Amino acid sequence: MTLDRRTVMASFAGAVALAPFLAIETAMARAGPPASDPHDRLTAVPGLKMHGDEQVAMLLYPGFTALDLVGPHYFFASMMGATVHLVTNGVDLAPVASDLGLAIAPTMRMADAPRDLTVLFVPGGSRGTATAMRDRATIDFIADRGVRAKHITSVCTGSMLLGAAGLLRGKRATSHWVARPVLAEFGATAVDARVVTDGNVTTGAGVSAGLDFALALVAQLRGRPYAEALMLQAEYAPEPPFPGGTLATTPQAVADGMAGIFAPLAEQYRAAARALR
Amino acid sequence: MTLDRRTVMASFAGAVALAPFLAIETAMARAGPPASDPHDRLTAVPGLKMHGDEQVAMLLYPGFTALDLVGPHYFFASMMGATVHLVTNGVDLAPVASDLGLAIAPTMRMADAPRDLTVLFVPGGSRGTATAMRDRATIDFIADRGVRAKHITSVCTGSMLLGAAGLLRGKRATSHWVARPVLAEFGATAVDARVVTDGNVTTGAGVSAGLDFALALVAQLRGRPYAEALMLQAEYAPEPPFPGGTLATTPQAVADGMAGIFAPLAEQYRAAARALR
Repeated sequence: MTLDRRTVMASFAGAVALAPFLAIETAMARAGPPASDPHDRLTAVPGLKMHGDEQVAMLLYPGFTALDLVGPHYFFASMMGATVHLVTNGVDLAPVASDLGLAIAPTMRMADAPRDLTVLFVPGGSRGTATAMRDRATIDFIADRGVRAKHITSVCTGSMLLGAAGLLRGKRATSHWVARPVLAEFGATAVDARVVTDGNVTTGAGVSAGLDFALALVAQLRGRPYAEALMLQAEYAPEPPFPGGTLATTPQAVADGMAGIFAPLAEQYRAAARALR
Repeated sequence: MTLDRRTVMASFAGAVALAPFLAIETAMARAGPPASDPHDRLTAVPGLKMHGDEQVAMLLYPGFTALDLVGPHYFFASMMGATVHLVTNGVDLAPVASDLGLAIAPTMRMADAPRDLTVLFVPGGSRGTATAMRDRATIDFIADRGVRAKHITSVCTGSMLLGAAGLLRGKRATSHWVARPVLAEFGATAVDARVVTDGNVTTGAGVSAGLDFALALVAQLRGRPYAEALMLQAEYAPEPPFPGGTLATTPQAVADGMAGIFAPLAEQYRAAARALR
C-alpha cells in the first residue's frame, strides 16, 4: 500500500489531480494505521481496475452550465490515478463564470492542455454555448484534441460544440431536449436517450444527465464494479420528489411554457451551426 | 414584462445573483422581440410563484464536496429574483478548493453575509468537514445565521456541521450513509431517507441527493409547478446505467470494501462531535 500511495502522490499535480479516496487515506493515516488496509478488499473485486492514468480535459468557457461539468468531474476525479484538467478558453487562469454566476477556477489554458487525451469533455450552457460555437480558437481546440482523444464526450448542449468541431458527423448522439433537433445540422443522428455511445463518442442529455453519463463512462474505463463503488460513494440512488424532467412527464402547462421560453435558444444554435458551413 | 425584467436586473448583484432564464431572455432580446412573451404562459400556471426575493447563503470551506453544492446551486440560482451568495470561511475571496481539487470562487466572506437568510445551506465533504467542525468561527457563523434562517439546510455530511452548530437537537435528519449513525451525537434522530424535512430543517443524503433535496426545497419556496419547470430545465429524469447507490443495492464485495474504506471517516466525525461537548 505504501507503493500505491506513492504512485498516487506522484500523480498529484497541483490541486487538481487529487486521486480517489485520497482524502480518506490521509484521514486514516492521521487516525493511525489500520490493522489491514481496507482498499485491499476492494482491489480484490473481479473486474475492478483500481488504478489508471487517464488524462481527462474538461472545457470551461464563459456561460457554461456548472452542473453539466461538476457532476462528471466528481466521478472522473474520483478515479484513482486519473488526472483531471480544467481547461479554460480564456487568456489567463481567472475563474470562469457559469451561466448562473458560479465561477470555477481553471487549471490550464487550451494551449497547455495535453495533446493526447483519454477523455475530452465539453459541458453545455445556454447563450454562452452559442457564443463559443462562433469562437474559432475554441472550436479548433475541440477538433484538434477530439481527433486523438480515446473518448470524445459531452453533456447537455456541449454536443453543439462537438458538432461545431465536426466530431459528430455520422454519429448517433444526444443533447439537452431543447437542442436535440439541432444535432442533424452537424450530420449527426439525434437519439432521444439519456446517454448515447457511438464508437468513441459518448454524449449525455441535459444537465443532470451528467451523472448517468459519467457512471457509464467510468464503467467503460475501469469496469462496472469501480463505477458501482463511486455510485455508492455518491449515494446515487435518485428519488425525485415528484414526476417530471421530460416534456412528456411534465404537466402540460409547465412543459408548454418552458418549450416556449427555450425555443429561441435552439434557433441560436441552429444559426451558429449554419454559419459554420 | 418590462417591469419584471427591471426587477430582475435590480436584483443583479455582481456575477452571482443571476436570475433564472435571464440568459435566455437576453438571447430573445438579441433575436428581436417575440410576438408575445413566452414567460406569460408560465406565469399563468396556478400555484407557480414566478418571482421572489430569497436570500440564499451557501457555505464554502476547504475540502467541501463540489457536487454537494453545485447541484442545489443550479436550482436555487434558477429561481427568478433569488440572490445566491457563495460564502467562504476563508480570510479572503480566493477560490476554495474542494475535496477533489475543483475550486469555486466565493462571492463574500462570512462576516459580510446577510444576517437574515431565507436559506442557509451547508455542503458536505470528507476530512475537510471534520476540520471545519473544529473551527470555532465557522461553527459560530452557522449557529448565528441558522437561528434566524427561514430554512436550515444541508446535503451529505453538511449535516455534521449543522449538528456541530447545535441546529439539529431534537430534529429528524439525514446525511451521507457513512455519517448517518453519527447524527445521534448531536441529539438528532437519524432517518434513512434521501430528503428529510423536520420543521424548518431540511437535510439531504449523500452528494447526488442534492438534486432531490433542491427540488423539494424549491417546491416549498415557489410551489411545485416552479420546481417542475426547473426539473424540466435540468432534464432531471434520472436513469442510472445499473442498480446501486446504497449499501443494500450495491454488490456485496463492493459495498463491504467501500464501508471499510469510509469507516475511519465516521469515527473522525464522532470524535469531532464529542470534542464539542
